[in-house]
Amino acid sequence: MKINRVGLFGKFNDPSESVSDTVAQIRQLLEKNSLKVLLGNTTSAAIDGERIDDSGRPLGEAIDLAIVVGGDGTLLSAARTLAEHGIPTIGVNLGRLGFLTDIALHDLESSLGDILSGDYLIEHRTLLETRVHLHNDIIHRGRSVNDTVISKGDTGRLIEFEIRVNGRFLSHIRSDGVILATPTGSTAYSLSAGGPIIYPTLPVLCLSPICPHTLSNRPIVLDQDSRVEISSMVFSETHANLALDGRVVCELHGGETVAVTKAAASLPMIRINRHDHFETLRSKLGWNE
Amino acid sequence: MKINRVGLFGKFNDPSESVSDTVAQIRQLLEKNSLKVLLGNTTSAAIDGERIDDSGRPLGEAIDLAIVVGGDGTLLSAARTLAEHGIPTIGVNLGRLGFLTDIALHDLESSLGDILSGDYLIEHRTLLETRVHLHNDIIHRGRSVNDTVISKGDTGRLIEFEIRVNGRFLSHIRSDGVILATPTGSTAYSLSAGGPIIYPTLPVLCLSPICPHTLSNRPIVLDQDSRVEISSMVFSETHANLALDGRVVCELHGGETVAVTKAAASLPMIRINRHDHFETLRSKLGWNE
Amino acid sequence: MKINRVGLFGKFNDPSESVSDTVAQIRQLLEKNSLKVLLGNTTSAAIDGERIDDSGRPLGEAIDLAIVVGGDGTLLSAARTLAEHGIPTIGVNLGRLGFLTDIALHDLESSLGDILSGDYLIEHRTLLETRVHLHNDIIHRGRSVNDTVISKGDTGRLIEFEIRVNGRFLSHIRSDGVILATPTGSTAYSLSAGGPIIYPTLPVLCLSPICPHTLSNRPIVLDQDSRVEISSMVFSETHANLALDGRVVCELHGGETVAVTKAAASLPMIRINRHDHFETLRSKLGWNE
Amino acid sequence: MKINRVGLFGKFNDPSESVSDTVAQIRQLLEKNSLKVLLGNTTSAAIDGERIDDSGRPLGEAIDLAIVVGGDGTLLSAARTLAEHGIPTIGVNLGRLGFLTDIALHDLESSLGDILSGDYLIEHRTLLETRVHLHNDIIHRGRSVNDTVISKGDTGRLIEFEIRVNGRFLSHIRSDGVILATPTGSTAYSLSAGGPIIYPTLPVLCLSPICPHTLSNRPIVLDQDSRVEISSMVFSETHANLALDGRVVCELHGGETVAVTKAAASLPMIRINRHDHFETLRSKLGWNE
Repeated sequence: MKINRVGLFGKFNDPSESVSDTVAQIRQLLEKNSLKVLLGNTTSAAIDGERIDDSGRPLGEAIDLAIVVGGDGTLLSAARTLAEHGIPTIGVNLGRLGFLTDIALHDLESSLGDILSGDYLIEHRTLLETRVHLHNDIIHRGRSVNDTVISKGDTGRLIEFEIRVNGRFLSHIRSDGVILATPTGSTAYSLSAGGPIIYPTLPVLCLSPICPHTLSNRPIVLDQDSRVEISSMVFSETHANLALDGRVVCELHGGETVAVTKAAASLPMIRINRHDHFETLRSKLGWNE
Repeated sequence: MKINRVGLFGKFNDPSESVSDTVAQIRQLLEKNSLKVLLGNTTSAAIDGERIDDSGRPLGEAIDLAIVVGGDGTLLSAARTLAEHGIPTIGVNLGRLGFLTDIALHDLESSLGDILSGDYLIEHRTLLETRVHLHNDIIHRGRSVNDTVISKGDTGRLIEFEIRVNGRFLSHIRSDGVILATPTGSTAYSLSAGGPIIYPTLPVLCLSPICPHTLSNRPIVLDQDSRVEISSMVFSETHANLALDGRVVCELHGGETVAVTKAAASLPMIRINRHDHFETLRSKLGWNE
Repeated sequence: MKINRVGLFGKFNDPSESVSDTVAQIRQLLEKNSLKVLLGNTTSAAIDGERIDDSGRPLGEAIDLAIVVGGDGTLLSAARTLAEHGIPTIGVNLGRLGFLTDIALHDLESSLGDILSGDYLIEHRTLLETRVHLHNDIIHRGRSVNDTVISKGDTGRLIEFEIRVNGRFLSHIRSDGVILATPTGSTAYSLSAGGPIIYPTLPVLCLSPICPHTLSNRPIVLDQDSRVEISSMVFSETHANLALDGRVVCELHGGETVAVTKAAASLPMIRINRHDHFETLRSKLGWNE
Repeated sequence: MKINRVGLFGKFNDPSESVSDTVAQIRQLLEKNSLKVLLGNTTSAAIDGERIDDSGRPLGEAIDLAIVVGGDGTLLSAARTLAEHGIPTIGVNLGRLGFLTDIALHDLESSLGDILSGDYLIEHRTLLETRVHLHNDIIHRGRSVNDTVISKGDTGRLIEFEIRVNGRFLSHIRSDGVILATPTGSTAYSLSAGGPIIYPTLPVLCLSPICPHTLSNRPIVLDQDSRVEISSMVFSETHANLALDGRVVCELHGGETVAVTKAAASLPMIRINRHDHFETLRSKLGWNE
């Protein structure tokens, strides 16, 4: 992969001096390495620089590499678009290590050196494709990097689902909701709900009930090529919510089927060889203590 | 305790033949034992019989014993009022054993015999008193038999609290919510969230985070005489919900403090001597298998 | 696969009438289907019939199909040998459904019909290969179908390990022990220790600490092709035990490295098309209630 | 309480300079406050000073206050004796905060000032009394501050118990073992096994199964005045171990009944008013992050 043009993504809509400084610092570093820098569309107009959107080219042709600066949330926001265009991505944090933004700003220079000299791997992170079927229509469709979650809305009572995997009935679940997580998402919400840590590149999904009424309803690891269908029961009192990577995208009022499969596109995360996912786990989960 | 007048409570608003038959059957049994029967206000007008509300007396004088027929949910609904008037209560189920409605209909006759011959104990079940403070006002106030729950509303993200116990800071919690359960409620929602089973008469509360972000935020058992204050942080995107025994009673928009203490009133549950809470646990939790 | 000769395995060392009757009943059924029956070496001499051991042929040539009768424990015992010779296997239970012995005796006839008419799949179940290294020697070597477990011996205190995966340091763990489970073993001991349910054919392993001191030391799902090395620390007071499928095979006194990889051989379990692993889960875990 | 004579306990059997220095430093501090210092019997002969054992008086008369220096393990060792004589106790750590040894060495001076001026509370920590009955004999008897634990010995298989509380059958449990923890012990082994955190002064016990086969066998909080009887089933293959505060004191070979009650003596822990158990929880469990 020849890298000439780099897209810079972040929550750069805050035109404060510190943000401008960070952008300027990264841009300088990139330009020093003879790379052309384009700013992502989330960047404040107050920050100078050429925009990807103004390049007149589709994203996949406009840039060869995406650098996302911020936290894991920032990367999740950018990831769906980057995945669609298959753009190799690295995540840079501004102080607090993330599972996805695992390069510190002060390490960017050396990491960039590794990347430019070809000393890296690409880890393809699976995305989920979620479709909400009602009667004969698809009423919502979207992608998620971490998880697709159905959870109860404004109610104090549990909700009820029927789960099918590849057309076969798995179980009824009465719970606060259900999480379908990718390996990438296994260290996010799924972990809080009792799910296992899953090595990021494994071809599996994890389905975890949230506070299930039946205590033996435990997280279940499934083939990533499974089609998981979650049929929401009729809700007498309330609705449920469908969230992709933590954003509620759709209300469920009963009768819908939420079908989740592996998305066609995956996110090519760049891993320099020094990178160690276990070190991130130890640090983020406090195993170092 | 001399029992002359018995209140009959249940979801008797369904005037179907089977419900009428059940009411008639229980009434006949009670009258055979020289007891006067009054119907609770939840009873359908289609069912014959004298009503408590028509008795012209306050509840505490109108009846000496309450028989609640249905599931635990039915008993929870009646319990707050019965507790306030200190009326000894038994719960009768119509087929499916409950933690509170633990007498089967076909056992009612022999249980009644035990009660009338004084062969019983009274277990005082603690209720929680919950007050929502905002600025200098109390914006909601209510009681719960099982639990007081604060949980996220229509959002895919976690919410954040600060917990104080008797004025001392316990912790910040980032989670889907937090449950304060009585021992009676320990086998309800709290158990699904990872809380322990608590013997019903112990003078303790259990505070359990729901899917906490920090994995070491575990359920904590506190003195029942504690004052637990849960201060909701400012919610940027959404509101949280306050639910008492599973009914959402109040939205929280940030800035409120939810203060929970033991209520002055408790629910006097009648326990005949044959009753065995452990047997209920084994049956409800599938330990018999 | 042409099936002519069937090996019959079970705890047939009890020459009581009922066992003889069961063996006789199965043999009759098999012979009715023109199959030759040979008895496994675990069968009591009091039971009539030709023995595999007497056939003068290696196991892989002596029989085309193994029928294991009993519980999951019985199948685990036979499985290591059957796997080595690649013999297709079915498990028949005598009343209590097992995860592996999932055909009821009264269903054997129809299942056999499906198998003989080719209406089945073969699910290759992974086995683990465990080697204990000390200094430059391998002091123990064995295979497991469910799990390889290191656990504390006669001590009330926790033990301490260092875990490496493919040579990379994962973590120190202070716990009662550690479980490495195959997907097949995910519903056995691993589940009791908080591990997830894993669909049996997935190419993964699960490493679960047993009662870890650090609460964030959660089960972790790894690639089945990983080499997991567990180095036992020096034990001041006691030894640890290494168990394969629940049998203690080796004491660890400190300084050993237990290396676990996927075994070269796998167990070919026959799945008739009616078989439904989810149904077994629902039944065994009480989800049907 | 008038304090004149202070006993100093610790792992002072290491006559290294640093330990001698610490002892000397504490002694100097105490003597500066006109207190007489006596050394506990665990102290190396190489360290100068008058010994409690040489004082010719029973422990309860020899000292008015015990200062235990070290970790929680050190305090647990001393606690059983101190409790028996009702000696008020403080725990001082040499760097790593403990749940019991919660005063840092550099805070000892100011804490001592508070104590001498009467600015403290006494928290009575419950001890458990454990008796092992076999036929008509008591074959072992001992006390524990944290927990009484029955766990499997050198076996890879689970063991089986029958639990009774005040003579009433609670459940059969098939598991790796069972923990009976005091509130003090709730943050030790019990927490690793899934038990709740219990405020130290509550009049309860917690019974937690270790890796139970039945997933709904959850921790159960009982009245501290309960008599819990754990009857070990016949073990075909192995023995089980009984451990008090982590020390194996007795092997169980099947047929024994382990009866646990609250001990007559409790440990009077001194709590200066600045002390905050919640702060210790936050620090030890990593809630501060």
